[in-house]
Amino acid sequence: MIDLARRVAVQDLVAHYGGLLDREDYQGWLDLFDAAASYRIAPRENIDQNLPASLMLCETKKALTDRLVAMLKANKYRPIVVRHVIGAPELIEADGERVRAQAAYSLYHVDGDGHAELYSIGCYDFRLVFVGERAAIRDAVVIVDSFLIPTLLVKPI
Amino acid sequence: MIDLARRVAVQDLVAHYGGLLDREDYQGWLDLFDAAASYRIAPRENIDQNLPASLMLCETKKALTDRLVAMLKANKYRPIVVRHVIGAPELIEADGERVRAQAAYSLYHVDGDGHAELYSIGCYDFRLVFVGERAAIRDAVVIVDSFLIPTLLVKPI
Amino acid sequence: MIDLARRVAVQDLVAHYGGLLDREDYQGWLDLFDAAASYRIAPRENIDQNLPASLMLCETKKALTDRLVAMLKANKYRPIVVRHVIGAPELIEADGERVRAQAAYSLYHVDGDGHAELYSIGCYDFRLVFVGERAAIRDAVVIVDSFLIPTLLVKPI
Repeated sequence: MIDLARRVAVQDLVAHYGGLLDREDYQGWLDLFDAAASYRIAPRENIDQNLPASLMLCETKKALTDRLVAMLKANKYRPIVVRHVIGAPELIEADGERVRAQAAYSLYHVDGDGHAELYSIGCYDFRLVFVGERAAIRDAVVIVDSFLIPTLLVKPI
Repeated sequence: MIDLARRVAVQDLVAHYGGLLDREDYQGWLDLFDAAASYRIAPRENIDQNLPASLMLCETKKALTDRLVAMLKANKYRPIVVRHVIGAPELIEADGERVRAQAAYSLYHVDGDGHAELYSIGCYDFRLVFVGERAAIRDAVVIVDSFLIPTLLVKPI
Repeated sequence: MIDLARRVAVQDLVAHYGGLLDREDYQGWLDLFDAAASYRIAPRENIDQNLPASLMLCETKKALTDRLVAMLKANKYRPIVVRHVIGAPELIEADGERVRAQAAYSLYHVDGDGHAELYSIGCYDFRLVFVGERAAIRDAVVIVDSFLIPTLLVKPI
């Protein structure tokens, strides 16, 4: 197992992940990722059946950065705000410097009239590395249970 | 109060509870329960008025195991996946080896078309015991605020 | 940064905040606030644009107490129960005796027929002080992303 300080670092990472996206602090969000990070969004049934198709796949941090820039440009035409409510992270594996943690999320999109809809629910599956006592995301897989197609991927999940 | 290691054990238990159900790891879920465990699901108003009626009552771990097997058979006919988003556990009482903790939950059911609905919201009311530093559920009461009757109890909450 | 015990105190505070409101323990809820506390509910866009308008503003704990009494009287005419599902608190600033923490919430209202609706989603923005190892709310800002106007402010958020 990992010590309490590192467990807290995992909790912090998950809390920051949602908070930074909700505050649209995308640079801060990118900074949660390790230099060798990957980011994938995939439907749950693809994950369960080991199917390779993804809704989004960025195999490098540069690809993720580029994709984020593209998303934010598209987003100018349809202003929405987002809110992540994320459950406590579950330690799936914890082995020295590497930790795998999952956390269920519910993600809401709110339009300009203040109408909220449940945009996506699912689970973050993070493989984390530690930089000192700080946790960073090496590989993020967003396991999507459900989503509204029309607005998919206007912003990261 | 209880020490930090045991508080973390309570957080872990709650995170595992939701994660194991979401991953359909029912044996792992059963293993969260103490050998002398009970499990009850009841509407909030029955709990508030001390009415004995339950939506489900398993007074022993064997009864819970049997009920789970029955549920899973019924479930073959209506495939759904579930996702629990659970708030942080609140320590209601903490007295040496015994802890009472509550945690609000929202439970989503997702059908084969990727359509999610809020299936149930409510609160877990757990009385926990410790086995070393690990927490186990002695008595679980699932306090249900709302639910969709048609599919009730196809899976544990 | 703050030590582990105080971090746990922040987590506790947030968990109690939701739990006490859900159990309608309003005195307990008021006790979470420091004697010099303020409480404000405001739409997210007002917060983002630094607009002063609020949905509710109590600049003193006495004002909050009075407002709560008024709410509870109004509430007699429309019984609802509430459930808060709150994400883990994110430490925004932590500087000695003062901590600023944010936590996303989803708040459900359930009517007498057991029908739940998402009443409000948003984020708590708490400025906390410590009394020994216990955290208390100095200034609470409830940042509301969405809400149902007709029943607004029947109960605190």
